[in-house]
Amino acid sequence: MTDIFLSKINSTKIIPSIRQGDRRILSRCISWIENEHADYLELLQSLPADYSTRKVIGITGAPGAGKSTLIDVLIGHLISEHKKIAVICVDPSSPFHFGALLGDRIRMNKWFNHEDVFIRSLASRGNLGGLNPKVIEITDLLKAADFDYIIIETVGVGQNEVEVAAIADTTIVVLTPGSGDDIQTMKAGLMEIADIFVVNKSDHEQTDNLVKNLQGILIQDQQPIPVLKTIATQGEGVRELWNQIKIDLSDETKNAHKPELLAAEAYQLIQYQRMKDLSKEDLSKDIRELIQHEQFNLYQLISKYT
Amino acid sequence: MTDIFLSKINSTKIIPSIRQGDRRILSRCISWIENEHADYLELLQSLPADYSTRKVIGITGAPGAGKSTLIDVLIGHLISEHKKIAVICVDPSSPFHFGALLGDRIRMNKWFNHEDVFIRSLASRGNLGGLNPKVIEITDLLKAADFDYIIIETVGVGQNEVEVAAIADTTIVVLTPGSGDDIQTMKAGLMEIADIFVVNKSDHEQTDNLVKNLQGILIQDQQPIPVLKTIATQGEGVRELWNQIKIDLSDETKNAHKPELLAAEAYQLIQYQRMKDLSKEDLSKDIRELIQHEQFNLYQLISKYT
Repeated sequence: MTDIFLSKINSTKIIPSIRQGDRRILSRCISWIENEHADYLELLQSLPADYSTRKVIGITGAPGAGKSTLIDVLIGHLISEHKKIAVICVDPSSPFHFGALLGDRIRMNKWFNHEDVFIRSLASRGNLGGLNPKVIEITDLLKAADFDYIIIETVGVGQNEVEVAAIADTTIVVLTPGSGDDIQTMKAGLMEIADIFVVNKSDHEQTDNLVKNLQGILIQDQQPIPVLKTIATQGEGVRELWNQIKIDLSDETKNAHKPELLAAEAYQLIQYQRMKDLSKEDLSKDIRELIQHEQFNLYQLISKYT
Repeated sequence: MTDIFLSKINSTKIIPSIRQGDRRILSRCISWIENEHADYLELLQSLPADYSTRKVIGITGAPGAGKSTLIDVLIGHLISEHKKIAVICVDPSSPFHFGALLGDRIRMNKWFNHEDVFIRSLASRGNLGGLNPKVIEITDLLKAADFDYIIIETVGVGQNEVEVAAIADTTIVVLTPGSGDDIQTMKAGLMEIADIFVVNKSDHEQTDNLVKNLQGILIQDQQPIPVLKTIATQGEGVRELWNQIKIDLSDETKNAHKPELLAAEAYQLIQYQRMKDLSKEDLSKDIRELIQHEQFNLYQLISKYT
């Protein structure tokens, strides 16, 4: 325990330590962000202006699609290339997540103790879309560290996950054959955010069917998005996936949109700060009471909060 | 021109006039809300506590699905039952919309001059999700008038329309055969919001195919939602549709969720009021400049706005 932890956050010492690879300070800072420590925004304000060059890879898909196994193999591949990787897991069903079944945790545990791999699970906050600002903030902190790549794993089931994908430089949507994933993917709005589709568990007999359906929809939408087949449990197709990720990450045309993407992030963070005093549950309680006393007027209610 | 228009909004005179059916004052008040007249929130705060009992029918679907023709026939049906109807049109492609082609406008024009029908188009604001608060506010004002039903027409293509549907007591999603509408409907998130599906233009040869696909998805989701066939241009199936709408509107189990729905509306309106000083375009401009001068830090930027 060093002095910098004892009192107020001392950003001038912390950020250089994180940049030099101090994982303990990094972990502590992530907790500060998660728990909204009094000085956490000050810490983030001290990030150097050049911190945002690190590449972020988003991986999303339904629970059980094999995202964690795929990330597991990807980590192995990157470690063999002497890269350092951070993984943020915002999927509560993931084996990387501390709340997961013990068996799964043990299976993935090797990376928790590898010095070039940093894995952190984030608790989902449910309402307020409260998770996303934390993911943005923690990702930015990780960019100030010494990682070559940052991987964000999310469950692709709803709007929150789609928004998280906006902070990734490349987004991979993982599907499995025989699961009705093509329909679910469309319903969750994942067609629009995918830079690469992965059909995992591609030894399943329904594989060609899913690939065909997917390509049919992509052609209809005139979106030339690559569809790759993998069998993550056997490491099959993962090298090809990594090559495709590198091609996508090096696409310069994407950089032109950077200010708009950052503006969208800024907007979301400002909205979070301005709205975090308010919960729909409290409003709902107020409204029940007002209705009961026959005094409900929506605009009188909102005037108390604006 | 009466005195109440000359100075400050005089709510004690205006609301009773609207309740008694004064369409000119109603129109003026809607413009006040649209343009955020200095006193418009005060006007809404003076709505009586019992104003929210009027039923709202949401009708959504892709451009060209026949929503307006369907509403046209529905209005005819309701007029024959001596009902008064208000229609809010937030679909810029609709013939009810003033920006639409002249030919279409003339076709629908009969209702513009009918004393028991009030039609108002709302301009879409694009960013900020800026349209929805206005739709909520104007719908609430219309509830204070003398209408039996309020119909909101939206284009079902994105998140905004899904949110608008949350203020409707019953939501009808209109599809057309042979248009890939089943796929688009899933992608736009319209499966979840539909209380009733209408397959319009059901003399098309692909009708049974669309109905079958739709029912397949509904069975998979375990959603027992009625699918009705209409040919709006011939008035076919519209009586059956109205009967289904009445069944859905009288479903008492829906009222249990009323406080939560109102809380969601309140939250959205508060967020709108707290965020309306801010635009993503301005943020994007700021960010471009900061990046150019190598001084960009997201958290320093947002601290200026929180």
